[in-house]
Amino acid sequence: MQKTVLLVHAHPEPTSLTRTFVEVSKTHLAESGHRVIESDLYGLNWKAVFDADDFLKRESEERLAFIRESGFAYANATQTADVQEEQAKLSQADAVIFQFPLWWFSFPAILKGWVDRVFAFGLAYGYKGAGNQYRYGEGGFAGKRALLSVTVGGPIEDYGGRGINGSLEQMLFPITHGTLFFSGMEVVPTFAVYDSVRMTHARVELAKKALKERLNGLFADPPIPFRFQNNGDYPDRHQLATDVAPELNGILAHLRNPDLFI
Amino acid sequence: MQKTVLLVHAHPEPTSLTRTFVEVSKTHLAESGHRVIESDLYGLNWKAVFDADDFLKRESEERLAFIRESGFAYANATQTADVQEEQAKLSQADAVIFQFPLWWFSFPAILKGWVDRVFAFGLAYGYKGAGNQYRYGEGGFAGKRALLSVTVGGPIEDYGGRGINGSLEQMLFPITHGTLFFSGMEVVPTFAVYDSVRMTHARVELAKKALKERLNGLFADPPIPFRFQNNGDYPDRHQLATDVAPELNGILAHLRNPDLFI
Repeated sequence: MQKTVLLVHAHPEPTSLTRTFVEVSKTHLAESGHRVIESDLYGLNWKAVFDADDFLKRESEERLAFIRESGFAYANATQTADVQEEQAKLSQADAVIFQFPLWWFSFPAILKGWVDRVFAFGLAYGYKGAGNQYRYGEGGFAGKRALLSVTVGGPIEDYGGRGINGSLEQMLFPITHGTLFFSGMEVVPTFAVYDSVRMTHARVELAKKALKERLNGLFADPPIPFRFQNNGDYPDRHQLATDVAPELNGILAHLRNPDLFI
Repeated sequence: MQKTVLLVHAHPEPTSLTRTFVEVSKTHLAESGHRVIESDLYGLNWKAVFDADDFLKRESEERLAFIRESGFAYANATQTADVQEEQAKLSQADAVIFQFPLWWFSFPAILKGWVDRVFAFGLAYGYKGAGNQYRYGEGGFAGKRALLSVTVGGPIEDYGGRGINGSLEQMLFPITHGTLFFSGMEVVPTFAVYDSVRMTHARVELAKKALKERLNGLFADPPIPFRFQNNGDYPDRHQLATDVAPELNGILAHLRNPDLFI
């Protein structure tokens, strides 16, 4: 069945590895029968900074409180046109792929600003005006899949379980768990190409092949096994039940199989 | 002895909790005999997006590779004036305090873009053109202290060792470890005020008092005990020695006392 895939990407150089992978994904997904839409954040000259200009009408003219104004603008269709357009793309998407270079172990600012501005209150958080009722596995983006596809300058040994930078998947937890799964998406494991500053033609070809394989599994691969808020693991919606992974604390406690996240 | 403290902050609303804490810090540090300089990112209309305009002269006109151009611009003083000014402030600072609201479990985009643009190759990474020789505890910002001071919308129980969002300090690891300690800073534990959307006058006063106490310890408190790259724990500069915390994998392995980081 044809699916719609939104490709959000963040590199201004057309010959970059990021953009090379964007082209590979567009072509391969289309050849697989899918419909591809995209958000080329540098090409769009995307406004990264979330500020007063995001709210065409204010609930309070006196004091700028972002959560309140985000909810007001979303509910009253007084968001800016660029944000509405991204939300419209998201509503069509069955999956979202984020293709970006890892900068300081996280999103480039332009991509963080896409989340800050597009993931509105009432949609990505505070869904249905019901506080935290629907987060983590439910919410405005439930039913969608997500994939982080990231190029990493350093070598893989720096990012493994014992690597000096720390485990890549653990560092991306604020995004995979705290942003995408939070708002309802099923997130498949991160696709990473390491040593991106030392690519050879042969390594690029291998990476393209590996990416295509991951794209083939975009809708079939098991997602990262984050725990759903509302399946019993968090009886009060705040903390893990005492009998759930009682030996664990921190990030790893929120996976049904923490071994997959090292 | 008088120290210079750089306050980098990120909220446009003068009456916000962020800006309230900025004022408290400025006043209290000055009263303690320190010199305070600041970077009011919204006030500066800080350009968050790292792009071709960051490089006044290019090493390569054909292809934009950020690391190469960042190193070239830093070495040749062809960075933009705003970036040079922030680096000049950093060079004067004995400590840097980041005061910001936690947005999607990380920096707001404007603050991420301050790091992306100011933490240049040759200074914050690739120090002295020596590859990875000086990272994690050494480097361009060695001798400086850093503190994240963050306002968090949700309740503290969501952020503890068993809280649904994950441990706050673990989520901030890409910043504390991967950005600040990476470039040489000693990072003290994060100061967080939770439930920031439900503040009362009494809670604001308590939080101001707690912040002042943390400011009193800015130069004396033990830093987060991250492992130094060059003290023997990482013999090849990439991975932990097999006899260092052999039972641990991931983020926690990079602390000399992981219990402090849950």
